[in-house]
Amino acid sequence: MPLTLYHSKGSSALAALILLEEVGATYTVVDVPIATGAHRGPAFLALSPKGRVPVLACPEGVLTENPAILEYIAATHPAAACLPAGAFAQAQARALCAYLCATVHVAFAHARRGARWARDPAALEDMRRMAPAGLQKCAHNLEEMLPPGGWALGAQYSFCDPYLFLMDHWLGALDVPIAEFPKLAAHARAMRARPATQAALTRDQAG
Amino acid sequence: MPLTLYHSKGSSALAALILLEEVGATYTVVDVPIATGAHRGPAFLALSPKGRVPVLACPEGVLTENPAILEYIAATHPAAACLPAGAFAQAQARALCAYLCATVHVAFAHARRGARWARDPAALEDMRRMAPAGLQKCAHNLEEMLPPGGWALGAQYSFCDPYLFLMDHWLGALDVPIAEFPKLAAHARAMRARPATQAALTRDQAG
Repeated sequence: MPLTLYHSKGSSALAALILLEEVGATYTVVDVPIATGAHRGPAFLALSPKGRVPVLACPEGVLTENPAILEYIAATHPAAACLPAGAFAQAQARALCAYLCATVHVAFAHARRGARWARDPAALEDMRRMAPAGLQKCAHNLEEMLPPGGWALGAQYSFCDPYLFLMDHWLGALDVPIAEFPKLAAHARAMRARPATQAALTRDQAG
Repeated sequence: MPLTLYHSKGSSALAALILLEEVGATYTVVDVPIATGAHRGPAFLALSPKGRVPVLACPEGVLTENPAILEYIAATHPAAACLPAGAFAQAQARALCAYLCATVHVAFAHARRGARWARDPAALEDMRRMAPAGLQKCAHNLEEMLPPGGWALGAQYSFCDPYLFLMDHWLGALDVPIAEFPKLAAHARAMRARPATQAALTRDQAG
């Protein structure tokens, strides 16, 4: 039974799309365009009451949340060697994913989806104004935290790399030049050079 | 070599403290009181540039982020059986942890730490006003998502339970009665009945 990725163009579901390509998974994509509100429709909410993409339908059931989906794809495709070995190395991978989902993605979301946390139009505008600086601070932290080697965890590509690659999109969307962050810029270039990334970007834009 | 938990009283480091007690780990606690700004001091920032607790110093290096720390504790203490078996069950555990750190904890943080995302005092006040409703929405989602069985993942206690137990603190801090959420209330009662939770709560308050 193949995997099914519920995806919306330009969303963070891109990371799963890249990793599915990278590991050579058998999968199909269902588009749930956020622009038309499809993620709030009854069909999608029946699948995932949180109303967010990505969702991955697996043989065993339905998975949500990028860190869980990405590590599951890596764990179930061991030949692709995208899951580091050992409890500590895996914990470091999860720490990076937690930072990306709970701090970096959240910093970005304040530019677009401030209505999750405030109501007053002036408050939403204040969040929007502050979002680029918040995301830049995250990018500075990542520059400090990333180990040498070029990939998110060092010398070897892992399930964290497609997730880190979203930085390229997030910074671009807030008009922050990624060139200010040499490690992130080199990472984005290395990601774009991979056929799996290119295939996923093409599919993402078709969605 | 024992583990060292960097902790602040009343913070989300309580989850790791509970799990360390639960698995019978050999560990020491270093208090980094947020109230005195110790988390912004050079000693702690040298350990963890993000300036957040919890941090777990392990034989192999330093770990940050609750989801990573909790699963590492479970994985390195297999006799305690706090890590579910199998790729899909583990992915579901990680999905719950990701929701707790990226959505639930973030919803709570808008009541106290809005300055991460806005500057205008009126915006911070708007966030504070809206935070209880945001956290209530998360609690409703958790009530829907939690499987039967009483624990975060079902019938068996896991590394997710101490993290879910923070809901009890977060709701209480925003004056939202946990009794409105029967599964969460029963979970909090079951957690409080465990000697490990009691020992951790006593240590937390001493910090």
